[in-house]
Amino acid sequence: MDLSEVGEFGLIDRIRKISPRGSREVVIGIGDDAAAWRPTASSTLLATTDLLLEGVHFDLSYTDYYSLGWKSAAVNLSDIAAMGGTPRFCLTALGIPATVSAGQVLEFYRGFNDLLRRYGTALIGGDTCASANGLVVSVTAFGEANGRSIVRRTGARPGDRIFVTGTLGDAAAGLELLQMGIREPGRKKKAPGPEAHLLERHLRPEPRIKEALVLAGSGCASSMIDVSDGLSSDLLHLCEQSAVGAEIREEAVPRSPALAAVEHELHQRWPAYALSGGEDYELLFTVPPRRLVKLRSLPLNVTEIGMVRKGRSLTIVTPEGRKRRCGRTGYDHFPRAQRSAAAQ
Amino acid sequence: MDLSEVGEFGLIDRIRKISPRGSREVVIGIGDDAAAWRPTASSTLLATTDLLLEGVHFDLSYTDYYSLGWKSAAVNLSDIAAMGGTPRFCLTALGIPATVSAGQVLEFYRGFNDLLRRYGTALIGGDTCASANGLVVSVTAFGEANGRSIVRRTGARPGDRIFVTGTLGDAAAGLELLQMGIREPGRKKKAPGPEAHLLERHLRPEPRIKEALVLAGSGCASSMIDVSDGLSSDLLHLCEQSAVGAEIREEAVPRSPALAAVEHELHQRWPAYALSGGEDYELLFTVPPRRLVKLRSLPLNVTEIGMVRKGRSLTIVTPEGRKRRCGRTGYDHFPRAQRSAAAQ
Repeated sequence: MDLSEVGEFGLIDRIRKISPRGSREVVIGIGDDAAAWRPTASSTLLATTDLLLEGVHFDLSYTDYYSLGWKSAAVNLSDIAAMGGTPRFCLTALGIPATVSAGQVLEFYRGFNDLLRRYGTALIGGDTCASANGLVVSVTAFGEANGRSIVRRTGARPGDRIFVTGTLGDAAAGLELLQMGIREPGRKKKAPGPEAHLLERHLRPEPRIKEALVLAGSGCASSMIDVSDGLSSDLLHLCEQSAVGAEIREEAVPRSPALAAVEHELHQRWPAYALSGGEDYELLFTVPPRRLVKLRSLPLNVTEIGMVRKGRSLTIVTPEGRKRRCGRTGYDHFPRAQRSAAAQ
Repeated sequence: MDLSEVGEFGLIDRIRKISPRGSREVVIGIGDDAAAWRPTASSTLLATTDLLLEGVHFDLSYTDYYSLGWKSAAVNLSDIAAMGGTPRFCLTALGIPATVSAGQVLEFYRGFNDLLRRYGTALIGGDTCASANGLVVSVTAFGEANGRSIVRRTGARPGDRIFVTGTLGDAAAGLELLQMGIREPGRKKKAPGPEAHLLERHLRPEPRIKEALVLAGSGCASSMIDVSDGLSSDLLHLCEQSAVGAEIREEAVPRSPALAAVEHELHQRWPAYALSGGEDYELLFTVPPRRLVKLRSLPLNVTEIGMVRKGRSLTIVTPEGRKRRCGRTGYDHFPRAQRSAAAQ
């Protein structure tokens, strides 16, 4: 079905019909000049926006539309999680090239909405327009938090321990498998196995909403960020904003059994996927020593990987005990020239 | 200055330094995973998002970056105005091609921020990334409103009078002047004259925030929308959502002296610019007969152009008294094929 058969307003109508509408607090959903809702009394509001551009953030020969929709929602909800907030609403704007059909757009929204429904989040508005240059996805997510439990990037102090949820490097390894021509046999009938796990981690990441709420509610985390650009890059962001340095033990960085199983097929050695590969959407956070006992009592799958230090640099300790200073090796959209990197 | 000399995070830092930060209620501005603020007690929140894509919504040979930033803010604040809300905060995401310099990006933000400052609105977050395919602008605006004074598209009733603020068609005429090769001599040293006025209306539209607040506060408007796609298209949106029809008198549609002065140079006759030309960002609203006296007491420059009718169609009455039924002639991003339009 061609988009010109449905028209802009027919398309919006179909999107509205398949989207989660939210509860009574939503005063106006999809279809007016703006969406409207009544915030919960005494809550602090959170808002974040992310662009996903064809040819930069995704490749339509690697992802199906359902997975692209899922991931577009997940990366935004992950930013709400990284503040310790509860996601509530989304707005989504799509710039759609003439090559994309109405069915593909609706498949995008099916994936988007399935992720939203997992976390009780409603789609309340957005924008659809033609694009002359590739598919453009823009998502804005809103969350709510108790003002006292918001976890910022600025609270890490020397002596705090550094933790991550889950495992790191899977999404980057999944991307490399896609680049090597390995594909999912199908979302629903996928064969079990390490490749399938890594592809899923890249294509349909799971934002750590529940883990973030447990952490924020416990008061254990002094700072937090989600791992979107890569461990070294995101840890450096956190260090910069807290005015501290960090030391992590390479051996301690959690690797999934799936990644260990396929590592011999991949081009890089293991820690590179965790350190420089982004898009895992795990939580990276720091915990003051006095909170460690409480942290260990929480129902969380987390791994201690290092310690916050004075200074501003990030040091990686190899399994052999060598220390190397680590610059930002994750994703920078406008990377500095080698010359200026050397002068840093 | 090349973006690779500044880097993604250097750029974000420079944007933060030139942006309005808002008042004490902003808990977290630019730089964390999400922005955070404390909403005013008892207010209803409004949120809207719009994409502006190079080659679809703007042409960099027509607009300077300052004006593009201004307009990107204006079109979003206009959606908040059309609900009767007060704009409060924005998030902005930019997808930036390699051909665009850091200076041009900052010029975009200067225009964006100048418009925000006019209406006491703060820039509290966003996203910047590389684009492989042209400049991508995504803006999300948040507003607040008293729940009872929100004006939706759904409240028009037969017998209500139809009004617009300001004049219509100027922005479309301005675009045609640009397409004819006419340019602004410069934003600050522009020559007075009708062309300059029309170019300004296209390049740096003024959202009708103050007018919308006066109207919403008065309770006079039964429905409202901003004129972004063109009078006929936006009036049809409003009619559809209110389940009514409308009749407008062509003669009554307000035309600016500037448009009248240059009309002989343009390719179309006058009413076409108002009916089908979008981007005026005036307010189109309906008023029940019992509120007309109160409306006329308000400090507003508004013009009555017609009446809400039963049915679902839009009728235009020409100066000669002929009536013609009007389909949607404004902008549709995925226009229906002729065949299906005929079958409508």
